[in-house]
Amino acid sequence: MRLGAFLCCLLLSTATQAKPDVVASVESPSGVLRLDVIIDEGRASYAVYRFGEPVIESSRLGFLLRGEEKLERNLSLQAQRTRAHDDTWEQPWGERRFVRDHHQELRVTLHESINLKRQFDVVFRLFDDGLGFRYEFPQRKGSSELIIDDELTEFVIAAPATAWWIPAGEWNRYEYLYNKTPVEQVGQAHTPMTLKTDDGLYLAFHEAALVDYAGMWLRRVEGRRFRAQLSPASEGWKVRRALPFHTPWRTIQIADSAAALYNSADISLNLNEPNKLGDVSWFRPHKYIGIWWELHLDTHSWATGARHGATTERAKKAIDFAAEHGFRGVLIEGWNVGWDGNWFGNGNDFNFTRATPDFDFKAVTDYASGKGVHIIGHHETGGSVSHYESQLSAGLKLYAAHGVDAVKTGYVTDAGQIERRDADGVLRREWHDGQWMSRHHLKVVTEAARHKIAINAHEPIKDTGLRRTYPNWVAREGARGMEFAAWGNPTNPPEHEVNLVFTRMLSGPMDFTPGILSLQGRGQAVQTTQAKQLALYVVLYSPIQMAADLPENYAKYPAAFRFIKDVPADWSETRVLNGEIGDYVTFARKDRHSEDWYLGSITDENGRLLEVSLDFLDPDRRYRAEIYRDGPDAHWRDNGFDIVIEQREINHRDRLTLRLAAGGGTAIRFAALE
Amino acid sequence: MRLGAFLCCLLLSTATQAKPDVVASVESPSGVLRLDVIIDEGRASYAVYRFGEPVIESSRLGFLLRGEEKLERNLSLQAQRTRAHDDTWEQPWGERRFVRDHHQELRVTLHESINLKRQFDVVFRLFDDGLGFRYEFPQRKGSSELIIDDELTEFVIAAPATAWWIPAGEWNRYEYLYNKTPVEQVGQAHTPMTLKTDDGLYLAFHEAALVDYAGMWLRRVEGRRFRAQLSPASEGWKVRRALPFHTPWRTIQIADSAAALYNSADISLNLNEPNKLGDVSWFRPHKYIGIWWELHLDTHSWATGARHGATTERAKKAIDFAAEHGFRGVLIEGWNVGWDGNWFGNGNDFNFTRATPDFDFKAVTDYASGKGVHIIGHHETGGSVSHYESQLSAGLKLYAAHGVDAVKTGYVTDAGQIERRDADGVLRREWHDGQWMSRHHLKVVTEAARHKIAINAHEPIKDTGLRRTYPNWVAREGARGMEFAAWGNPTNPPEHEVNLVFTRMLSGPMDFTPGILSLQGRGQAVQTTQAKQLALYVVLYSPIQMAADLPENYAKYPAAFRFIKDVPADWSETRVLNGEIGDYVTFARKDRHSEDWYLGSITDENGRLLEVSLDFLDPDRRYRAEIYRDGPDAHWRDNGFDIVIEQREINHRDRLTLRLAAGGGTAIRFAALE
Repeated sequence: MRLGAFLCCLLLSTATQAKPDVVASVESPSGVLRLDVIIDEGRASYAVYRFGEPVIESSRLGFLLRGEEKLERNLSLQAQRTRAHDDTWEQPWGERRFVRDHHQELRVTLHESINLKRQFDVVFRLFDDGLGFRYEFPQRKGSSELIIDDELTEFVIAAPATAWWIPAGEWNRYEYLYNKTPVEQVGQAHTPMTLKTDDGLYLAFHEAALVDYAGMWLRRVEGRRFRAQLSPASEGWKVRRALPFHTPWRTIQIADSAAALYNSADISLNLNEPNKLGDVSWFRPHKYIGIWWELHLDTHSWATGARHGATTERAKKAIDFAAEHGFRGVLIEGWNVGWDGNWFGNGNDFNFTRATPDFDFKAVTDYASGKGVHIIGHHETGGSVSHYESQLSAGLKLYAAHGVDAVKTGYVTDAGQIERRDADGVLRREWHDGQWMSRHHLKVVTEAARHKIAINAHEPIKDTGLRRTYPNWVAREGARGMEFAAWGNPTNPPEHEVNLVFTRMLSGPMDFTPGILSLQGRGQAVQTTQAKQLALYVVLYSPIQMAADLPENYAKYPAAFRFIKDVPADWSETRVLNGEIGDYVTFARKDRHSEDWYLGSITDENGRLLEVSLDFLDPDRRYRAEIYRDGPDAHWRDNGFDIVIEQREINHRDRLTLRLAAGGGTAIRFAALE
Repeated sequence: MRLGAFLCCLLLSTATQAKPDVVASVESPSGVLRLDVIIDEGRASYAVYRFGEPVIESSRLGFLLRGEEKLERNLSLQAQRTRAHDDTWEQPWGERRFVRDHHQELRVTLHESINLKRQFDVVFRLFDDGLGFRYEFPQRKGSSELIIDDELTEFVIAAPATAWWIPAGEWNRYEYLYNKTPVEQVGQAHTPMTLKTDDGLYLAFHEAALVDYAGMWLRRVEGRRFRAQLSPASEGWKVRRALPFHTPWRTIQIADSAAALYNSADISLNLNEPNKLGDVSWFRPHKYIGIWWELHLDTHSWATGARHGATTERAKKAIDFAAEHGFRGVLIEGWNVGWDGNWFGNGNDFNFTRATPDFDFKAVTDYASGKGVHIIGHHETGGSVSHYESQLSAGLKLYAAHGVDAVKTGYVTDAGQIERRDADGVLRREWHDGQWMSRHHLKVVTEAARHKIAINAHEPIKDTGLRRTYPNWVAREGARGMEFAAWGNPTNPPEHEVNLVFTRMLSGPMDFTPGILSLQGRGQAVQTTQAKQLALYVVLYSPIQMAADLPENYAKYPAAFRFIKDVPADWSETRVLNGEIGDYVTFARKDRHSEDWYLGSITDENGRLLEVSLDFLDPDRRYRAEIYRDGPDAHWRDNGFDIVIEQREINHRDRLTLRLAAGGGTAIRFAALE
């Protein structure tokens, strides 16, 4: 039995209690969005409208708290307050230099009329292209903390829609191909989850400022009703926090085109706290190469032996290549002790300061310094995170002492199997995106900041805009990167990167590691054209961009390699010129340190003819367009190397017709003249 | 990064380590099935073949244990032992009187070569139509218990297949309509999960003897690979058990027709321990009526007031009706204190011994006794289970003292929200099918047995065959019952009951509560014909069967009502004559206390012409077939009342052509003559 009883109660009580009621309301600055707060028989919910049409139908708010009654009933509005906000702030690095934060805030205080008479605030911030809201729990007499068993926040999608999503709560963390299904077929999804409604609206659900809290999954409960499902803690609860505290922001981007959806991702940055690290000019966006692709090709190994990739000699050769071609960084994986056993999900043998016998750490870093190159450090944990934390300080200190100012961290283990020791020394297993790991990552980032080291986390917790607060958290993985083109089964299909733009990339920079000009994985071809590999440097944003292919492969394609050397990793402006989720997208971005613009356009398995206006260019300048485009016979399947590289002089009044081959792309540098 | 590293390790190690190897093997008694145990680089798995063709591909075995390394690597076979078994045992009640247990057992002892040098057994039992296996953990020096964080048991389906399944880990427990999807679209499913492979094999995955352990969900990991996902405990682990102990049996039924699949469900009973209660003749299968359907129609209420259903006067009228028509039981819901508030998920106001002012408990039970009728007790908990346990003994004692020898229990709250107080008095929330509830239900059942009371649990933990060991656990809900036809949105569609037969019913008896001859819910029609309502008494097995409609409705249809009065609730034999999952099914069952046979046949929204042989009848007898069939114009949508009731004399050589209307059915009593 289930609903029957419940419905009867409802029928009985409607006779005596108040009707559903909008108790508070707020509009976005230009009145595009409206949010209502509703109290219906003591239960609180919210609803969102765009130009008066429902986008999010009445969706519950509430919590299950351990040791207490459910916090979701007998609620009434005790206070409400609105506040306007409009300012523009500067990013130390990013997709654009200045970000405008223009929103209207509504704060409601909800009060429980019986039992514990608990009280909490919900704060909503409405932008014209989306919103965020969070819960704030005040101090309370008699209890110093809360244990959250479940967050009951709902998201009820008003209109039928198509969803792009990856499963959450599964073994492979975030590294899935995207599902495209009717929203009614979503199971449990990670955020960002992106929707296109049948009415042509574009929505994305995510969170901002995930600090000392569990990551939120979206679990479809029925129909188009989703509920927040917090990543569990090994103790059985989801979150344990000292009072007072607030949750992360639950965000909903709402736009009427795919391009506008991408731009609305700034909401996430605006909902994060300003920079807490002060001067972070010690981090400079840059490009890097690595002893890396050969490990994925399996011609070399992380483990020591005849095939060991990270030897002193090979490292010096990589440094030479980087110096010659202007790459600041050289990532070296497998230089330290611990890779010889089965380290997948088992990283207790890793030593973060001891090099293998065939790798002279001091000699390599000295050699790099002599050539103006920086080694990029590597901290693979195999998921043994308490073990890592015990050596974290020593590991960072060693790097800092030798000019290593960026570190790639790694957490290779099945989801839910991060190993830690608790206070009693008991081995426990956590999720990559649970509260404990949200703390761990910030511990690494803040400790690294003290050493002026930047962090690029792989198998990470998802990005929630914390790069604003901690600008040394520069990038992360958190999706299927290029490595899957080496050995993935299945490999990354032609639509993969276009899917990433409107899903994963809404959350922040990704260390995708593009640039495989050889188009060759381990016994399988990379499913793009060469021109698309170049375009990815403009399309997939990261302040650290890898040139991932082997030096000998770049030697074979010097003309195409030119673009990889030219393209910057830091921008003052970003425009999405066109796009459809999973189909195609075109970006224009302006270099932060020159007057040059860059364009990147990519498509899925279908060829496209895209006309773009160049009106983003400075009207007072002429430009030399250095165009890298698919040749007439290019095709991802059997002719990826057909590329045309040509130059033309153009200005802001010109229009360009981009011809993208199946699985292809176009990359353009607009070099400002004089 | 993910697979790359892992594959490399594999490539490295294959050079030096042993190849995948079958280390033990066992065949079912007639050689239909074969099971191999494989050790591949220290990882143990099993595979299943039918007539040499793979059914289950190599599927991992293992555990994540708190405070210890993963128990899944560096394993070797230390010992193996096989054992033949063939006996036949008698059920005190059931679908058949005698059950044959014919299997071949293989016990393997796996030993860990490094670290803790742990050891455990896996015991496989192969029947010709399926198998079960469980883990057995021995005593161990230095630890008195194990905490299981996750069970890593896998089930890899060899062939493409269609799956019938309901979601697990969701708010609504087991009360979902069945999904029918390609197996690759299953998310996380409850068991039994039923498959039909493209090769025409029928499979069902379930478990047997779920005792002091967490219920198993099936989580699809990728492709057709499923992993056991144990229902979580509020402490964050899945199971905590003192050593030594063994897990429940993981069962796989394998048959080449839907009918054979239903019959293979006896595996579950065979894997349970024999009756521990001794003489249980005090429980007699029976039929009952109730103060119930009117509550779901909302013409009466559980709560007190003008519409209160459970008044002394109404109870006496129901008893009169039961006595007149030969029903042993009368279920009365809402007689006790606690129903007046919002009790959904909030049962702390329930009092299990105090009647409402308008209900004289002693007068009613005395009145019933005087007429040879037994009141069926009701213990709704609203999910507040610690509260219930504190009154359990008193509640049962009261019932026993007044001739109430069957109790319907209820756990109406969202999944994961069963409330209990731990040893420190802290309020915790558990799953309906977690370890704590598996203990709770057996506590209720064994305590009830001491009072010679039978238990019929609603919103229960799933059935895993424990009725063999505790024969007073007579039925349960655990699926969408008839009540959804009253108020479900959506209601139960015509295919629902045919889906139930090959999914939920594989696990055991269901208190579905058929017999709504009025075909009328709350503002919506029941989507069956009247004849199908009758057929359900034969099709959906339960040793307690409700005649769920209102007495005044039965008065309107005395001819059809006749069958409900005649049909028994206990059988000596059961045959599935034909069927397809979700389409149609025909049962023949023999009354345990006479020579009469009964036939029930139902179809989905499509009409059917089914020819059945009557060769199950005794060749030495003649029978009067009392046939209740759909009339020529019957249709579930608009003409459910068109029924033909007729009699013919037949014998075992006859063949019958059953004509089932859309959404219809046929019910037949074969009354043995002289």
